[in-house]
Amino acid sequence: MTFEIHPQLIADCHHLGSLPVCHVLLHKNAILPWFILVPEVGDEDLLDVDPETRNQIMQEAAWISAFIKKTMHCSKTNVAAIGNVVRQLHVHVVGRNPGDACWPRPVWGNLNTIASYTTKDLAEIVHAMQQGDAWGEQFAPC
Amino acid sequence: MTFEIHPQLIADCHHLGSLPVCHVLLHKNAILPWFILVPEVGDEDLLDVDPETRNQIMQEAAWISAFIKKTMHCSKTNVAAIGNVVRQLHVHVVGRNPGDACWPRPVWGNLNTIASYTTKDLAEIVHAMQQGDAWGEQFAPC
Repeated sequence: MTFEIHPQLIADCHHLGSLPVCHVLLHKNAILPWFILVPEVGDEDLLDVDPETRNQIMQEAAWISAFIKKTMHCSKTNVAAIGNVVRQLHVHVVGRNPGDACWPRPVWGNLNTIASYTTKDLAEIVHAMQQGDAWGEQFAPC
Repeated sequence: MTFEIHPQLIADCHHLGSLPVCHVLLHKNAILPWFILVPEVGDEDLLDVDPETRNQIMQEAAWISAFIKKTMHCSKTNVAAIGNVVRQLHVHVVGRNPGDACWPRPVWGNLNTIASYTTKDLAEIVHAMQQGDAWGEQFAPC
């Protein structure tokens, strides 16, 4: 059966591509860098996933975090798997800086300011994700 | 140098004990099971921690998650490393159920109801953490 990303995530995000285990989504609100990884697993809770797969998910999240810090000028990342509304497992990796749109609160439910990525912005992000670092070769754009 | 847990976490939580890498804290608000793991590492962001140590932190978080689900009657856990206010790395593992005190919102900033653990409650939780599962032997109460 083909894996399908939850329609709410598809509605909220741009689907940029995939890493070995996770689909890589970028939240449409460009006010800060908010990536969402959707691993192709059956479990709903990250801490229920078998350790080997969970470690790979965390490695992919770490790649995204390093990308956010290096390329999108954030000093910090928040990482979370919540999923109380959309039950399909998804991992938030959010770039943060003191003074950003909802600092120091978490992004969930606290972002009142909205910005959009242009098609050019998205192309540049995808291009940057494919460059340089070892993991870029593992990133397959949509 | 002795590792010191951030005073804000000490003020907010009961310090129950330790696992191989993480100190195990329980948030004083007993309205839902809210554990906080504080690993003895220098990094502030979970996704900056070296993979081997990060995998161990996640394993310990998974043990706590399984404990919450088995013993504290929760159908789901939320896991997050945020740390915008308290910068010392700490990992939230929160037991959730539909209809709980702030469902479906995340706990951070959304818990208006407060309850307290009694000394007896805490002793029972620590006792339960030491029983049964293989990881119980690795838990050292304070």
